[in-house]
Amino acid sequence: MKKLINHVDSVLTESLQGFATAHANIVTLDSAGRFVQRRHLKAGKVALISGGGSGHEPLHTGFIGHGMLDAACPGQVFTSPTPDQMLAAAEAVDTGTGVLFIVKNYSGDMMNFQMAADMLDRPHATVIVNDDVAVENSTYTTGRRGVAGTLLVERIVGAAAERGMGLADLKALGDAVNKNTASMGVALSSCTVPAAGSPTFHISDDEMEVGVGIHGEPGRRRVKLGSADEIAAELTGAALRDLELRSGQEVFLLVNGFGGTPLMELYVMVNAAHKVLEGSGVKAVRHLTGSYVTSLEMAGCSITICAADQPTLELWDSPLHTAALRWGM
Amino acid sequence: MKKLINHVDSVLTESLQGFATAHANIVTLDSAGRFVQRRHLKAGKVALISGGGSGHEPLHTGFIGHGMLDAACPGQVFTSPTPDQMLAAAEAVDTGTGVLFIVKNYSGDMMNFQMAADMLDRPHATVIVNDDVAVENSTYTTGRRGVAGTLLVERIVGAAAERGMGLADLKALGDAVNKNTASMGVALSSCTVPAAGSPTFHISDDEMEVGVGIHGEPGRRRVKLGSADEIAAELTGAALRDLELRSGQEVFLLVNGFGGTPLMELYVMVNAAHKVLEGSGVKAVRHLTGSYVTSLEMAGCSITICAADQPTLELWDSPLHTAALRWGM
Repeated sequence: MKKLINHVDSVLTESLQGFATAHANIVTLDSAGRFVQRRHLKAGKVALISGGGSGHEPLHTGFIGHGMLDAACPGQVFTSPTPDQMLAAAEAVDTGTGVLFIVKNYSGDMMNFQMAADMLDRPHATVIVNDDVAVENSTYTTGRRGVAGTLLVERIVGAAAERGMGLADLKALGDAVNKNTASMGVALSSCTVPAAGSPTFHISDDEMEVGVGIHGEPGRRRVKLGSADEIAAELTGAALRDLELRSGQEVFLLVNGFGGTPLMELYVMVNAAHKVLEGSGVKAVRHLTGSYVTSLEMAGCSITICAADQPTLELWDSPLHTAALRWGM
Repeated sequence: MKKLINHVDSVLTESLQGFATAHANIVTLDSAGRFVQRRHLKAGKVALISGGGSGHEPLHTGFIGHGMLDAACPGQVFTSPTPDQMLAAAEAVDTGTGVLFIVKNYSGDMMNFQMAADMLDRPHATVIVNDDVAVENSTYTTGRRGVAGTLLVERIVGAAAERGMGLADLKALGDAVNKNTASMGVALSSCTVPAAGSPTFHISDDEMEVGVGIHGEPGRRRVKLGSADEIAAELTGAALRDLELRSGQEVFLLVNGFGGTPLMELYVMVNAAHKVLEGSGVKAVRHLTGSYVTSLEMAGCSITICAADQPTLELWDSPLHTAALRWGM
């Protein structure tokens, strides 16, 4: 295992400390390391909290700030955070207007966020993200997995919360964005969890895992490596079929790297995805391209399509100030 | 070779097309593919042009836009662009106020930018970036290499150009920022150039290349993999010694991933670098952490230190709108 670390046991702590130091104008790190929170809370705003296993950076800590999350609870690498982390985060960032949890659909996360919600003596609701159309049920999941589409839910709901939307409406908006979002990914290499010390899975030099999960979980099939055009056709096609979009529909297009794929290749995939979208009469009107929801150093990418309308586009475009995404301020 | 591509020969073209499509609000791609330029030119502003071999994305195309570059000329992967690319770019983006070339110190780039400058019938000047303190002379270089510090030069000079600074002053500012900037990197794995099809160099499972170049060129030494703290001490220490900073000096700290290293590890390196800076009485007042000047999918990182003062901090903080970096607008 070749990694830029000191000790396997301290990777998360040291990484969070580095993150909090580098972005001290945006976030603070809880003294016990249980959560990262927005430095400047906004009174009267519903608090948005997400979290999950680490190793997907910048998700979720990189999305804390104006127009997105109020707190994120990082578990160890690919391991759910504990209910006490979410409870502590909720108590730290709720200004009395309630808490919205945004949870990726994995069994551990679901159970622990549910336990936290049950114990929380404040108004709260939960949006579950399950945008991965690759497989129904999976290694760590009952039902579909939550993957890169989580970013879109966090952003659009975060922008609405910033504008003062109430808890029930935010929950409804988050559910609607999730329903309008579909993703699928492909892996060309495995990743190595520091505590494990060896690759999560084996893949041959000429193979790819189509429909891979963001922890390296198996997807739909293991086949010979295809061309960018073939891969884009399969990933984009699966997302489009799931969403059943009408011709002329405007969409957000997120081409997301898993960590080990150069940006140069991600833009080849953008170009390839565009050909598929054009062939379907669908128009990408907002683009996000980069490694935003990662699986450590796994090579590969996912394609996420989210149906856009005027309200969601306006929310997307509104001011945003996080470590990983920033515009308008 | 496992890459998300269609054909080795079309990687660059397709990637540029994807880039131009995704960022159509910021850039346009020359119809012959020779350069990418800022969509909305600003009359009376000195035009900033950079370029170099591809494979370092988001450098340089990702830094085109308000507050940074006006055009970038991408060569094939790790191959210098040709003089006609720079000439065409200069003719496209010069609004009559002159052209400043920002060139990383590699023999091919130096020769071709010089040829373009000699042929250019417009006021022009050139800033040469050579921030890599690892080695004097190298595989592709006479003198020190230009690496991640290029980003700082492009940003600070770009901000000054946006404010209306003239050509001679921009040249002097760029030279000063370059002189105040020092970088050094480490590689844990090689990268694979698509046209070559096999790794650029071999490195054992327990080794690292200290002082590596951004094309995988040899650095100072090949040694056993060290801890994050040890690596940060060597890289940061080398940069600090080069700059001979006084205690109390404020600096920009850029922890730059080479493409295959997870963000989680880069923040471990931020944390480690901070300990070294504190020990030297130097204070990082601006941070940039991410894979900005890459070597395709190479694992590893570089650390760049740039001495800051009030004018450069103000320029850094001024509005910026590029594909890869954006704030204040």
